[in-house]
Amino acid sequence: MHPLQQIMYPSSIAVFGASNNPMKMGSIQLANILETGYEGEVYPIHRSEETVMGVPAYKSIAEVDKPVDLAQLVLPTEVVPQILEECGKAGVRRAIIISGGFKEVPGEVGRERERQLLEVAAKYGIRFLGPNCVGIMNGRISLNTTTIVDPPMGGGIAFASQSGAYTAMINPYLRAQGIRMCQTLSVGNEADMDLVDCLDYLREEDYIKAVGLYVEAIRRPREFIAAARETVKRKPVVAIYVGGTAAGSRSSLSHTGAISGPDELYDGLFRQAGILRADDLDQMLDMLWILSMQPLPAGRRMAVITNSGGPGSSLAYHLEKAGLEAPPFSAGLRERLDAVTGPLTFTGNPIDLTFETNVFIFKQLLELVYESGEVDGAFIYGIFGASDFMVNLKKRFPAMQAMEEEWGKGYQEFLAGLAEVPRQHARPLAVMSLAGARSRSIQSLIDFGVPSYPSASRSARAMRALLDYRLTREALT
Amino acid sequence: MHPLQQIMYPSSIAVFGASNNPMKMGSIQLANILETGYEGEVYPIHRSEETVMGVPAYKSIAEVDKPVDLAQLVLPTEVVPQILEECGKAGVRRAIIISGGFKEVPGEVGRERERQLLEVAAKYGIRFLGPNCVGIMNGRISLNTTTIVDPPMGGGIAFASQSGAYTAMINPYLRAQGIRMCQTLSVGNEADMDLVDCLDYLREEDYIKAVGLYVEAIRRPREFIAAARETVKRKPVVAIYVGGTAAGSRSSLSHTGAISGPDELYDGLFRQAGILRADDLDQMLDMLWILSMQPLPAGRRMAVITNSGGPGSSLAYHLEKAGLEAPPFSAGLRERLDAVTGPLTFTGNPIDLTFETNVFIFKQLLELVYESGEVDGAFIYGIFGASDFMVNLKKRFPAMQAMEEEWGKGYQEFLAGLAEVPRQHARPLAVMSLAGARSRSIQSLIDFGVPSYPSASRSARAMRALLDYRLTREALT
Repeated sequence: MHPLQQIMYPSSIAVFGASNNPMKMGSIQLANILETGYEGEVYPIHRSEETVMGVPAYKSIAEVDKPVDLAQLVLPTEVVPQILEECGKAGVRRAIIISGGFKEVPGEVGRERERQLLEVAAKYGIRFLGPNCVGIMNGRISLNTTTIVDPPMGGGIAFASQSGAYTAMINPYLRAQGIRMCQTLSVGNEADMDLVDCLDYLREEDYIKAVGLYVEAIRRPREFIAAARETVKRKPVVAIYVGGTAAGSRSSLSHTGAISGPDELYDGLFRQAGILRADDLDQMLDMLWILSMQPLPAGRRMAVITNSGGPGSSLAYHLEKAGLEAPPFSAGLRERLDAVTGPLTFTGNPIDLTFETNVFIFKQLLELVYESGEVDGAFIYGIFGASDFMVNLKKRFPAMQAMEEEWGKGYQEFLAGLAEVPRQHARPLAVMSLAGARSRSIQSLIDFGVPSYPSASRSARAMRALLDYRLTREALT
Repeated sequence: MHPLQQIMYPSSIAVFGASNNPMKMGSIQLANILETGYEGEVYPIHRSEETVMGVPAYKSIAEVDKPVDLAQLVLPTEVVPQILEECGKAGVRRAIIISGGFKEVPGEVGRERERQLLEVAAKYGIRFLGPNCVGIMNGRISLNTTTIVDPPMGGGIAFASQSGAYTAMINPYLRAQGIRMCQTLSVGNEADMDLVDCLDYLREEDYIKAVGLYVEAIRRPREFIAAARETVKRKPVVAIYVGGTAAGSRSSLSHTGAISGPDELYDGLFRQAGILRADDLDQMLDMLWILSMQPLPAGRRMAVITNSGGPGSSLAYHLEKAGLEAPPFSAGLRERLDAVTGPLTFTGNPIDLTFETNVFIFKQLLELVYESGEVDGAFIYGIFGASDFMVNLKKRFPAMQAMEEEWGKGYQEFLAGLAEVPRQHARPLAVMSLAGARSRSIQSLIDFGVPSYPSASRSARAMRALLDYRLTREALT
């Protein structure tokens, strides 16, 4: 069993640094462990308190007379090696060291302390994440050891990061987009385990469908490439790298003590590793989202189905800019489409329904274009609920409330059916919508497995990532 | 007075096509006019109903025995010219024609109908928007004639668009970002008034600080360039163009009946016009947002102030990628910064506060870097409220509720003060935050005039737009 498997699935956790003073980072993390739904045992370790946040506390790890799978330490830097030693003596073999003040601070003291950690760990066979990290989140067991509340758990995305902020502070952004996250791992200074270990671990977890990495420096390039290539044979890996400019590099050095390299070097490294490179965190999530949910396209040919001209033109433009194609449909296919849409609709690709208010035909049209074999994937604009039309109408026509509810039920069925079409035809679908995850319809569609992007360019680049992954995987196997 | 001034500020509106059947587009638009807070007179015109949605209705425009500043028509195509004629006879001189079925549909019939509209308009001196548009929104008088509810009104952004969907469906996207919109104009087929008119009108409205355009085709390039250049001398103009690929062009043709040109042609046209080009709607809004609120930078030198390494490195990287610079600070400035942060913080630019929990020092640091004269603008990451830390803590420490409220007041003052610093020093500030507009802190900061972007790349490209506008304007004047 991979040591990270044990860190991510502990049956019991000892928490150092939590107290009855809520203004401590350890207290915030303990509150999150206790309130997120984790069902394992939690043992606060505190020198003087009988209980911490109502949970029985122990004076030291030695006093916990039960097996402890994982220790999380948020303590003043200078005591961390000693406490880790106490953990080792007490039989604890896995740890997350949150505390900073090690290799990332200038000078010899920090480096020396990090060496001490490694000595202690070697002596007792302890494997650990950190130091200088923010903890982990595992939605499979409702475990959140970070300082930030309410991760939207679920789905098939995992994210391993050399930035702690990105793994934890990401939660509100994920919620706003409607993206769920399955697991996050903050690796901090990587004194013991690093992104290579994360790749080895995440490769074997079959429910993880796509892996994201935030990289400031790769310390073991050869092992990284090997681990990534093995992973990419089974699931896509997308990375962000921001060390490749003068200021970016200066910042990384002060942050994780890692020496970064020029952009081109990392471009080459990612290419060799089979990793897709994202420009930034938002783009990485856009890519991981569709990669974790949709089938891969066999080629570049895309259909666009829209009920509005502007978004349709934007999709057509941006998919071509992203290196995909929107081929004109054959006369035969247009005839079949016209039979559904009526003669006034332009069905040449984009299919522009304009004033068509019966959104249910989106599903039929999608089936027809997939069945034709003329496209390898599709974009839809125009999936939205009635709410943006009805809010003011309902004030004037109270009877519409019941109508909306009735219609809403039919709409849910439609969305569930629509989301099945890509799977049935093994062709991907991306939705573009300005309504966003606050719209019940869009949230349902997402829950049924279709990602929704707020712009044409973001939809197109995400779709392109699916193609890039297919091509990359083929080249590797 | 520009005819668009009269269309945007009517004291009275006649609405054709609304009825007591809520499932009509005209009914949705009337409900929005009635429920958004518009204080002018509204006259539904309906052949048979005594009242429409409780408002007294008139059998024809001739029966409205009061001045009508504006008529909005959502009627079957074939009756539109005749109704417009009736409006002309009744003295109405401004109109918005929502109905489609004109030049944008294939064949001679549509073109002929559009010619009829122009004949009628010429005969009576009617100036109109459309046909084939969705209406207008003017936050200054709480007027929303579109089908979509709840535009987040305010601020200084105006948007004129050849896509109706983009002007109306944009509302939920704006709300999610925290962006307010002052005015939108959907120009449709531009049979009478076009984007040139919009530029002429918006140039003179001093409260409009930045103008966005969605372009599928420019029908009067010479006039467009002249109007834009005059506008750009007074306020920035940002355009999206999506006609420049094969499928994009095919889609535009079917949508507005306009013939588009290659990307490079439009690139050149926008450059001549002094217009900044955005890649897509989301990027256009990112640019307009900061352009409408922040001072212009004198040069490329940027400070980054962060409390997290990853976002700090990302900002440093992306601002350099965007053609800006993050110069290392002088020894003197670092000394002054160190006096605020303490010796353990890296203050070399980025300033990385890491574990500093006192966010209030952000303001002092910003003042110090601006006062130094060593930078022309700044980015901040790390402005967020307590909510993401406190939600679970409060379940364990109920007393924290009062504490949070107390702290929240001080925080509001801090945010108001912080937002003043860019104005006082005539240097722009952009905030990066993953918390988004759902966070009370971020929403406050936005309300105080500082835009907040969810990623480093988006922040950096927005800041770059400020510099580009300054350079463009200098070249024009």
